[in-house]
Amino acid sequence: MKWDDIDQQVCSVARALSIVGERWTLLIIRDAFKGTRRFDDFQRTLGVTRHRLAERLQKLTHEGVLTRIPYQDRPTRYEYRLTRKGLALYPVLVTLSVWADEWMDDGTGPPLTLWHSRCGKETTPVLTCSECDDPLRPEEVSARLGTALQSFVTSCRERGDAIPDDARLPSAAMDFHQQQLDTLSLHSKKVNHD
Amino acid sequence: MKWDDIDQQVCSVARALSIVGERWTLLIIRDAFKGTRRFDDFQRTLGVTRHRLAERLQKLTHEGVLTRIPYQDRPTRYEYRLTRKGLALYPVLVTLSVWADEWMDDGTGPPLTLWHSRCGKETTPVLTCSECDDPLRPEEVSARLGTALQSFVTSCRERGDAIPDDARLPSAAMDFHQQQLDTLSLHSKKVNHD
Repeated sequence: MKWDDIDQQVCSVARALSIVGERWTLLIIRDAFKGTRRFDDFQRTLGVTRHRLAERLQKLTHEGVLTRIPYQDRPTRYEYRLTRKGLALYPVLVTLSVWADEWMDDGTGPPLTLWHSRCGKETTPVLTCSECDDPLRPEEVSARLGTALQSFVTSCRERGDAIPDDARLPSAAMDFHQQQLDTLSLHSKKVNHD
Repeated sequence: MKWDDIDQQVCSVARALSIVGERWTLLIIRDAFKGTRRFDDFQRTLGVTRHRLAERLQKLTHEGVLTRIPYQDRPTRYEYRLTRKGLALYPVLVTLSVWADEWMDDGTGPPLTLWHSRCGKETTPVLTCSECDDPLRPEEVSARLGTALQSFVTSCRERGDAIPDDARLPSAAMDFHQQQLDTLSLHSKKVNHD
């Protein structure tokens, strides 16, 4: 499988990465959250080549993550703004950020802290369950076949096709395996120092 | 700035992406969560080239996201397991997945649903505030200078250096701008159809 085909996997992580999994793309989106809108501003703050930036912005616009709005006539120039689909990527940026703050701290602490205006406190975002509000721990979450994968598997069977590895994969993706816990008890000292 | 230098940005999103922002890397981690451990199994299910896969696994091991454990002597062969640092990437995979389920549904529904064993219900993970437990909405969260960025800025000033664009950037990264709301009211119909 080529990278360009990963959106063909019946897997939500792969689908998401087919849009935001390229170098620079999530940094462009980070900057858009900060308020950056214009090509030259993205280019200056990211330092990416103009060609690469144009390609990324075009894809994000095509996919409806950004929308182009004219801000000048003769010649018409456009700026880029996050759509609702783009704004919905906020939790992805935040979870990446929380992870780096916890695991990549070089001893100087976090670059930023987050402030929640609703409660007026410094916040550490937590991924929780929509039903019981408890924090979601990977060992307490299991994946079940959803409708998309069910119909894919059914149609493979009806055609007499083997179910390909890369489609079968997500049927158990993000299930937490007991072996992982074994790893931890064996190697927790080591990995804590990494 | 070259991509290989993005870990130099005093920004947690950039730092995280310097490890997990390459093509394939988050899919390797997804598979590791599923229980894949061995080189040939990663290679078969991902379809990535062996050279690329080796490079990615080496980086993830070097960065302490995966750990190599020998499973065979003569010749010694290793398998790869998630460390605590790797397991802590779970919220990143989940938020990507939730985003794709909401915004990339082709009409067939989600590939997978998630089940929370603690409460016994199908769950939709939500990013919430550690202090008040409310869902975090980007317009209610603002970023403030953390210690790492503060000391970086101070040392720039002490040396008489200009504060570079790519370091100043994160000082407001992920602040939510009122303009974004303007975009939404203007373009919400359009983006809903994307």
